[in-house]
Amino acid sequence: MILVEPSKPENIGAVARLMKNFGFSKLYIVNPVPSVTAKEALIVARKGTELLTNAVTTTSFAEAIKGINTVIGTTARLATPKNIIRNYIILPELIQNYKLTELGAIGLVFGRESHGLYNEEIKQCDLLVTIPTYHEYPTLNLSHAVAIVLYSIYQKISQEESIKNNHTTLRQETLPLATADDKKAFFSYFDKLVDISGYREVKRNIIKQNFRNIVHRAQLRGRESSVLIGFFKWLIKRLEESE
Amino acid sequence: MILVEPSKPENIGAVARLMKNFGFSKLYIVNPVPSVTAKEALIVARKGTELLTNAVTTTSFAEAIKGINTVIGTTARLATPKNIIRNYIILPELIQNYKLTELGAIGLVFGRESHGLYNEEIKQCDLLVTIPTYHEYPTLNLSHAVAIVLYSIYQKISQEESIKNNHTTLRQETLPLATADDKKAFFSYFDKLVDISGYREVKRNIIKQNFRNIVHRAQLRGRESSVLIGFFKWLIKRLEESE
Repeated sequence: MILVEPSKPENIGAVARLMKNFGFSKLYIVNPVPSVTAKEALIVARKGTELLTNAVTTTSFAEAIKGINTVIGTTARLATPKNIIRNYIILPELIQNYKLTELGAIGLVFGRESHGLYNEEIKQCDLLVTIPTYHEYPTLNLSHAVAIVLYSIYQKISQEESIKNNHTTLRQETLPLATADDKKAFFSYFDKLVDISGYREVKRNIIKQNFRNIVHRAQLRGRESSVLIGFFKWLIKRLEESE
Repeated sequence: MILVEPSKPENIGAVARLMKNFGFSKLYIVNPVPSVTAKEALIVARKGTELLTNAVTTTSFAEAIKGINTVIGTTARLATPKNIIRNYIILPELIQNYKLTELGAIGLVFGRESHGLYNEEIKQCDLLVTIPTYHEYPTLNLSHAVAIVLYSIYQKISQEESIKNNHTTLRQETLPLATADDKKAFFSYFDKLVDISGYREVKRNIIKQNFRNIVHRAQLRGRESSVLIGFFKWLIKRLEESE
């Protein structure tokens, strides 16, 4: 669980309590505005206070998500064609369509009470999730959004584990997922291809971002990443030769 | 929504905000300890303040549930053989096994922060629901329990209604999916790119197939297909020029 620049100690405390309620243990906080162990936070946290005293604070988002396999950002804002970076799935899609126990180490990211996550942070997320609400008033309080997401994920993971343990598995064996390093290499070759292609510069970011959105939703497999990296390298070589 | 003897104005306010977030409108409060419109409640309620000013306070539980078809009580406590009255279902069972739109007027009942609902009140409920939590610490804060229940019920009712209306909620709320024609064009440009790239012929099919697998799993959006087709066309042109 990663909170980015939370400003209200009551929210930080409530998140710690909720994590305890649903069996989550590692809390990272990027640039907290109040102290993580402010009195108001500790009071609200109840039996979750140990999560606050053990919380890791970082000064950058990149540092907080280091080593996480699947970074799941959250947003209340809607994607529009003009703002393609915020291409999200809704929480029920995450729950229904993904095997959460196969995503490796998951990091759930919640942004500022006031402004959510910035685009620079969203770009570093593998998935972007929004909680469906009634259209008139979509803005949930931070800790209530956390409650809904943690409950949903806890519930799904319990279900997946009980299916595994009962051997009543219906799932197909899937190929192993790409690791964080695989994905990093994969996107760096794709980005290089876009950059040396000579395609209009203003359009390059949107191509990279659309491609990332597709690949993240698809939960890239390690094997797929190496097959396609081979092809990307070849295209890069061809384009470089032709210059 | 019925709150029974809530004692913290912040919880009352948070419940009002959550009701507004999920499109619920009628709030009954049995013997509230603080004033329903206490300053602390109004601040937390945000756009839900109208629910507080319109809330109906009653002096008995029976009065608050009058006219309701299905009274759904909530509890954090576990049923034991000695205390059989607290025989509950878990929230996911309520969501999966009941057609909520066929239960008539539903009343959701949440008890005191300290002691939940008394047996006399539980006896008047048609269903008793509990939120599954991690065993070490099952006690949720009142407003977080409300968040989880309202979200789950809102989501299920939307789903039932959209099935009735014959369209799927998931697709409406995200960017429109690529049509069959979009996907056909998308893959034909990618395949052409692979074919004219000069990449080893024995490897071409595996590249095409891996790419298809990724894109199918991702449920390609229409917008993404047009953005990437533009890029594929450009690469094809560059490679053709270099020959």
